[in-house]
Formats: sequence, structure tokens, C-alpha cells
Amino acid sequence: MKKIVIYDTTLRDGAQGEGVSFSGPGKIRVAKRLDQLGVDYIEGGFAASNPRDMAFFHEIRKEKLTHAKIAAFGSTRRAHVPVGEDVGVRALLEAKTPVCTFFGKSWRLHVTDVLKVSEKEALAMIADTVRVLKEHGKEVVYDAEHFFDGYKDCPEFARAALTAALNAGADCLCLCDTNGGSLPHEIAAITAEVIRAFPVRIGIHTHNDSDLAVANSLEAIRAGATHVQGTMNGYGERCGNANLCSIIPSLVLKTGHTCLREDSLKQLREAALFVDEMANLRPNSKAPYVGESAFAHKAGMHVDAVRKNPRSFEHVLPESVGNQRRILVSELSGASNVFLKAVEMGLNLDKSAPEIKEILRELERLEKEGYAFEAAEGSFKLLIQKVLKEHRPFFDLEGYRVIVEKRHKGEACISEATVKLTVNGKTVQTVGEGNGPVDALDHALRSALLHFYPQIKGVHLTDYRVRILDPGEATAAKTRVVIESSDGETTWGTVGVSPNIIEASWEALVDGVEYKLFQEEKKAKKKA
Amino acid sequence: MKKIVIYDTTLRDGAQGEGVSFSGPGKIRVAKRLDQLGVDYIEGGFAASNPRDMAFFHEIRKEKLTHAKIAAFGSTRRAHVPVGEDVGVRALLEAKTPVCTFFGKSWRLHVTDVLKVSEKEALAMIADTVRVLKEHGKEVVYDAEHFFDGYKDCPEFARAALTAALNAGADCLCLCDTNGGSLPHEIAAITAEVIRAFPVRIGIHTHNDSDLAVANSLEAIRAGATHVQGTMNGYGERCGNANLCSIIPSLVLKTGHTCLREDSLKQLREAALFVDEMANLRPNSKAPYVGESAFAHKAGMHVDAVRKNPRSFEHVLPESVGNQRRILVSELSGASNVFLKAVEMGLNLDKSAPEIKEILRELERLEKEGYAFEAAEGSFKLLIQKVLKEHRPFFDLEGYRVIVEKRHKGEACISEATVKLTVNGKTVQTVGEGNGPVDALDHALRSALLHFYPQIKGVHLTDYRVRILDPGEATAAKTRVVIESSDGETTWGTVGVSPNIIEASWEALVDGVEYKLFQEEKKAKKKA
Repeated sequence: MKKIVIYDTTLRDGAQGEGVSFSGPGKIRVAKRLDQLGVDYIEGGFAASNPRDMAFFHEIRKEKLTHAKIAAFGSTRRAHVPVGEDVGVRALLEAKTPVCTFFGKSWRLHVTDVLKVSEKEALAMIADTVRVLKEHGKEVVYDAEHFFDGYKDCPEFARAALTAALNAGADCLCLCDTNGGSLPHEIAAITAEVIRAFPVRIGIHTHNDSDLAVANSLEAIRAGATHVQGTMNGYGERCGNANLCSIIPSLVLKTGHTCLREDSLKQLREAALFVDEMANLRPNSKAPYVGESAFAHKAGMHVDAVRKNPRSFEHVLPESVGNQRRILVSELSGASNVFLKAVEMGLNLDKSAPEIKEILRELERLEKEGYAFEAAEGSFKLLIQKVLKEHRPFFDLEGYRVIVEKRHKGEACISEATVKLTVNGKTVQTVGEGNGPVDALDHALRSALLHFYPQIKGVHLTDYRVRILDPGEATAAKTRVVIESSDGETTWGTVGVSPNIIEASWEALVDGVEYKLFQEEKKAKKKA
Repeated sequence: MKKIVIYDTTLRDGAQGEGVSFSGPGKIRVAKRLDQLGVDYIEGGFAASNPRDMAFFHEIRKEKLTHAKIAAFGSTRRAHVPVGEDVGVRALLEAKTPVCTFFGKSWRLHVTDVLKVSEKEALAMIADTVRVLKEHGKEVVYDAEHFFDGYKDCPEFARAALTAALNAGADCLCLCDTNGGSLPHEIAAITAEVIRAFPVRIGIHTHNDSDLAVANSLEAIRAGATHVQGTMNGYGERCGNANLCSIIPSLVLKTGHTCLREDSLKQLREAALFVDEMANLRPNSKAPYVGESAFAHKAGMHVDAVRKNPRSFEHVLPESVGNQRRILVSELSGASNVFLKAVEMGLNLDKSAPEIKEILRELERLEKEGYAFEAAEGSFKLLIQKVLKEHRPFFDLEGYRVIVEKRHKGEACISEATVKLTVNGKTVQTVGEGNGPVDALDHALRSALLHFYPQIKGVHLTDYRVRILDPGEATAAKTRVVIESSDGETTWGTVGVSPNIIEASWEALVDGVEYKLFQEEKKAKKKA
């Protein structure tokens, strides 16, 4: 039951992946989610290369993380520059993180062909960098870039690079298969040799260029590594980094290692989906363990056998990673999920209540239409209330109109929205302007409601995300809009779906306001 | 230089994957393409389960394959049914393929819990099936279903199942990790034991439920297996089968094995894309070896190093699998990236030309505003042309207006756009309707231009993506729109950024049309 340290680099190496794009607040939310999951280290970004990463290091210090340490990433001092004057090393210190990770060359080819310095200077660059970081009280992880290629090419130099880092005080030597070209047995053999020679924590960092990143990580751990670097959902340059969502469950469920918090493995699928959402990426339905299809059974024979004995066709229990078995013909499998959510909402429902089935049916219908409720709990709770007839509309929409107009060349675009509502039998018509059509609609809606419901005064939008559901149909495809609202204390997500982006946004806006009103009403009832 | 036999089951096990859908003629075309690639066996489908698979076996006999043998797939005779009377076994014979592959139980748990027969009967089912197939002159592959789970559970029975098949005359015993749950070192150890005990060709068939299918195949081959089953692009149930597009290049380029025809590895990417096309699936850009991003370089430093020595950041040469290096234009881009892109465009620029600096400055300014050119090569090329003053606008936008309106409750939303342009001194005003505001704008724009530029007739949008850049500012945040257009032959991406989603979409739409007109002009000039 050896503890394996999980070092997440989703926000740094993962963010290098094509199409991966985190916003500033999105990075903070991902870090908090990873901390909640029980990840040991969170590499937040490059200390030097861009101001947004530095802003992250600044912001994250204000957050109360429960377990994870934040690491800043950088490289050795440059060649022939005194370490005290190196801007990169200085930036690492300025990030003010407890942990600094930096990469240095372990492959002689890189020293001669890319850096073009002497071996001695290359080793000094590593040692100097570790030393100054340790002098400033940092925990130091040395990423031995291209370690395996380097070791195969010239083991003496690869070992010398590790020795330089170790002697200068590095806390962890992480062996990197930077090009992703090594095979599992090579990784196992070389890691074992390093483990024998270096009395310090050894880590592994692999890439998926040969479709072997997960296997290579597991083989290194089998050989004795106790620190593994990777990304959520395998994000990363080219073919991606080692996928922590595959590595962690295999370690916990198959090789008896300890990772994360006790029991947090059950949050894995939800966390994986959350990170996809924040990165604005479509979840990979075929993803091992956490994908939607990972436990989907199609052929009748399989289904029958699974029912007789799940072990017969499932390598692990889907629930162990927060996933669920899906029977592809008849979908009704999520009853316990809905039940759990209802309990969470304080609803007094029996597990076998007919309402649960009714909610499931409605859910299934909406999901077929393109709705997704993972990041839209507000809409999901409204849905439950609607099915239970506990919902009363706070207003009635009569109609709306949005105009976006650019009159002349070079002129700014104007956006104007009008909204017509009935509240308590009274018709209200308001107009709003904004930066764009949805902003204008939001302003018009709020100005219509504020008079009747002053409690929405403090509510504001904190996030707005758009996903095109069937990209093949381009602008005629369905659009899913997820909006996040906040009243300063709590935050809730709502969702809308329509071929028309304006209509989808409107749905989500309306849900966002209704959810707040409903919560306030519940509070008022409790007091009364 | 051991020859490894490649057994492709894309058309059978692969077709079980969610979303995989081959037409009848599509299956024939895939089989011919695989034959051309040099695959040794093509498993065409189930002999019994559906008439379309039987039609495939019939049709493929008329085709002249140059190398591959066709295999039909089935199972053992049913329990307590004389083998001569078993419909499944009869169907295997009726498929009239030179090779028959069938699966039988190797895991005692399946015999007791699923089949519910005696061990003796289970073994007889295997032996009888092999015997009758051999009597009919078939080459027989025995797929030992759940072999590894079975071996871990009860090695005696797993071995007895193989012995039954071998003694009855099977030509190949294929060890299956049906649930995809085994680890590489387990596969290696168990395969090695089988190799020692059974003097016959041993095969390996793995699934990707633990993200290890490729590693497990390679480890089995390292232990002595010489027949590997898998699918193109890793299609298959749940998380997919072992991906032949990853296994084959590693065998040929890294472990010195022989597979396929000499030199046909260079067709691998093309074949992978072809199969995706036939299966109606979007290619996975992150796929190892054959994916569009597999050799894409982003960070400036990497690009520079790759140019100095490709080995420094590439595990194999992209050309060896028919892929190519791609230089991504991104926020971390340096002069060498822009230069390489200009060369790719056929522009005659010196690396130190002042224009390169000017392009970089403009790029930096736009990227600060939120533009991203990774997926918008069309806009990037227009940008270069604008800086080089090689660009002339094909039309002049005067103004546009979009109205989205929902008149009454329950009524559908209508979207109407008007566009006012000047083309060659003439003012044109058009109107378009659509499913949403952008669709309406697209229609209005095309109808305004078509009269002057009939060459845009075939252009249509194939993808539309929206990204909110600073979600913290919600609907007032900046919006980035990326549009993909196609003329049926080539596809190009364009980008627009604005706080107003309509304006951002408009920019990308206009770039999409301008890029096409520019390309046509270039072609016309070349001819002249």
C-alpha cells in the first residue's frame, strides 16, 4: 500500500494541448477542484512566459486549499548567466509558490545540438538553479527532460545530470519521456537502475506519442517511482500527456497503491467532466474509467452476463470511479443518481417513488435534445421542482426582440433588447443595451423584474459558455449555453439549448433568475 | 526481424464501437484498403448474427485481394448441441472464407456463472468446433475469451481450454484480454508461460479499458506472440480495441519487427483517415503517429530545436507513417514559426526580412486582443497578405443589422439579417433568414456576393465554434468565433473576436469568403 504522489500539470503542460483553453478564473476553479480531489501538487503554469500565469500564482494564494501544494514551472538558468541575474529563475521565486519545478537537459544530444554549451556548463546550470531555489526555502522538483532518450544515448551524462540536481539538494528527480517514444520495458529497466543509484524520491513524466503514456507511468511506478506527473483527461501537446484519470484508478484499484484522499476516487468522473468544461473541450466518451462509454454494454449477451455477474464483463465496478453502467438499449440506469440529488436538495422522496422515474424520463428527453446538467445544477433542480409540481413561475414571458446593428463602416456595433413580461398580472415592457445581444437581453430582463423582486439586485453573471452541439451543421446546428450566476455568496449554473443562440441564452438567463427567486422563497418559508 | 502477423478486426469488433457505422459498400472499400496496406487477415464480421455481414463475405469473394485472407467470426457450438447441427458453426462454414475465428470460454467463472455447463462440456464445445472447421479445410484461429482473467483465476482451466483447441488442430491460439483490465507485466508473464507450453502460433487481442491496450499488445509480442489483433484507430466497444495504427509503427520503427508490406507504413495515416471517413467518424487529432497533432509543434523553443535536429523533439520521423510536421501559430510563437508558415505558403521571404517582424508585431497585437490562429489558418494567411500589402478587399461592408424576435409566448424565434455592401462601386442590399442570427447573416452575405463572385457558390460552413475569452465578465466578455469553411476539396478556418458575438461571427464569416476569393485569384494568376 505504497503512497504515490500525484503531481498534476493540467494547468501547465496540459494547457499546451491544441484546443485547451482555460480562462483566468477557470484556472482557479480547476485548481480548487483538483485540491478537493486530493491531488498532492498542482503545477499552475510557467513562472516567466506570460503574465496570466503569474496572475494565477497571485490569485491562488488567496484561496484556502485543503491539501495540494502549488508548483511554479520554469527552466534552469540560461547558459553563461549568473543564476542570480537569470530572469527565469527570478520569476520562479517571484511566483511565491512553496514548490518550484524546473527542467534541465539530460540528453547529451540536446546539450551539443540545441543548447550548444559544454557538458560542464550544462550540469552547472542544473546545480545552480537547484541551489538558489533551495536557498529560498523552496521544495524543488527537477524535471529531467528527455531522460530516457538521453539515458539510452549516453547514460553517463544522464546520470550526471541527476547527480548535479541531487547534490544541490533537489527533493525529487522526475524522469521525463519528453518525446513520448519509449517503450514500457525500457522505462521499467531504466527507472529501476535510477532507483538503485539515487536515494531520493523518483518521479515519472510521460507523453503519449506512442500510445503508451499510461503504461509507461505504471511501469515506472512498479520499478519504484513514487511521484507521477500527468494531466486530467490526458491533455497536452501533440498526443497529450499521461492521463491521470487512467493512472490513478489503476493504481488504487489494481496495484493496491494509495493516491488522493480516501474515497475521493468516486469523484473522478465528475472532476474529469468539470475540467473538460473549464477547458471548453468535448469530453471523450471512450475515455477509460471516466468516459461515458467506459461501462456501456451493447450486445445482449454481454448485458445478460453483466447482470449475472458484473465481474464477467467489467474490469472494475463503475461506481468505484463515479461512473455508471450504461445499457445501450434501454437507458434507465441513473435512478440512484437522481435520488441522491433529490436527497441533497432536501426533498423527501422514496428511492422507488414514481416521481423518480418521471424525473428520469424528463431528464432523458432533455439530454436527447442536447441539454447537459453537469454544470447546470440550477436548471436541474428547477426541473425536479417542475416535475414535482413544486414550481410556480415567477413571471410570464410574452416576447422579446434583440437588434444588433452596425450602421456604417468603422462604427461600433449597437445591441438593443426589448422584453415584455407579465408579473402578478401586470404587463411590463423594458429595454436594455449591452456589449452584445445577450448582455442587452440580460439588462432588459433584470430591469423588468427588479421592481417586483428586489432580491435579484445582487445577482450577476459570472460565466457564460457556448457549445455548438453538432459542429457538422455549422451555424444551423444546435447551441448549448451554460450561464453561471452568483449573488456573492453562492454560484449556480443554468442551461439552455436551441438552434438559435439567442433563444438558448434566454432560457439559461431565465433559469438563472428563477433559481434565485425559488431559493429565496424557500428561505422565506423556512423562516415563517 | 521477426514477422508479426496483423489481424484486423475493424469490420467486426471495431464495428461494435459506439458511433461506428459502415455501409455495405463501405465495408468492401475498407477491406480493399487494408489489403493494399498489407494487413494479413481481415475479419469481416459475424458469420451468423446479421445478413449484412453474410453479404459482405459473399461480395468480398468477387474482389481480387492481393494479400489479405478474409476471416469469418463466430463462437463455439452451443452447449449440448451436436456440432453438426449448430447453426452458428454452420454459418461459419457458409461464409466460405479461408479462415474461421471463433471464441470460447477460458475463464471458469464464465463456465459456471454465465454458460452454466460442466467444465468437460465447455472443453468439448471448443474441441468439437475446431475439429469440424478443420475437417472443412479451414485455417482456424481460436480466440481464448477472457484468457488473462481466467488464467489469473484458475490457470488449470485456462490451459485446458487452449489444449482442447490445440489438440483438435487449431492453427493459432489467440489470448484475449476481453475486459481490458490486465496490466502489461501480467500480460507479459502469462503470455511467456503460454509460449513455453504451447508449440503453436500465439496471438494477442486486447481492449483499452485501462488505457493499456497498445502496451499490452506490445508486451505480449515481446514475450513471443506473433499474431496481433486490433482495429484501425482503435475502434471498438466501451473504450475501444487495441489500436493497430499505434501498434504497427512501434513494431516496425522501434522493435525491428516486420509487418505489412515493405514501405506501406508510409500509407498509414492516409489509411487511418480513409477508415474514419468510411466509418463516418471525426478523426482524432491527438492520435499517436497518425493524428493531425501528432507532430505539431507549438512553443517557439521546440520549433527551433526541431529545426536544428528533428530527433530532439520527435520520437520518429513524421514521414515514416505518412504524417507531417506542423508548426502551430500560437501565442508563444517566435519568428521561426512565422517564417516556416510563410515558406509553407510559398512566399519568398528571407528569415530576417523586416516583414517577418512586422507580421509578428501584428500577430502579437491581435493575440492580445484575443485572436487565436491555431485553427484559423485562413485568417492567418490573410493577415500575412495584409501586412505584405498583397491583399485587396473584394468588397466593402457598409453595415448590417440582425433582428431576433419572439413575438408571443410559445412562438418560434425568428432571425432576420440585412447586409449592405459595396462591390466594384455598386451598392448591394440583401436580406437573409436563418435558424439563428449568424445563420441569417451568412445567408444575407452570400446572397449579396454570389452575383459578383460565382466562385463562392460551393462554399459552405462546416464548423462553428464559440469561446468566451474571459468568462469572469460573463456576457460582457470578449467572444472568439472560429468558423470552418469548405469548398468540398479543401477546408479552412477563420477567426473573429469582439465583445459582441454577432460582430465576431461576422468577422470570421467575411474572412472565410475572402480567403476563398483570394485563393481563386491566386490560381487564376498562375494560369495567366
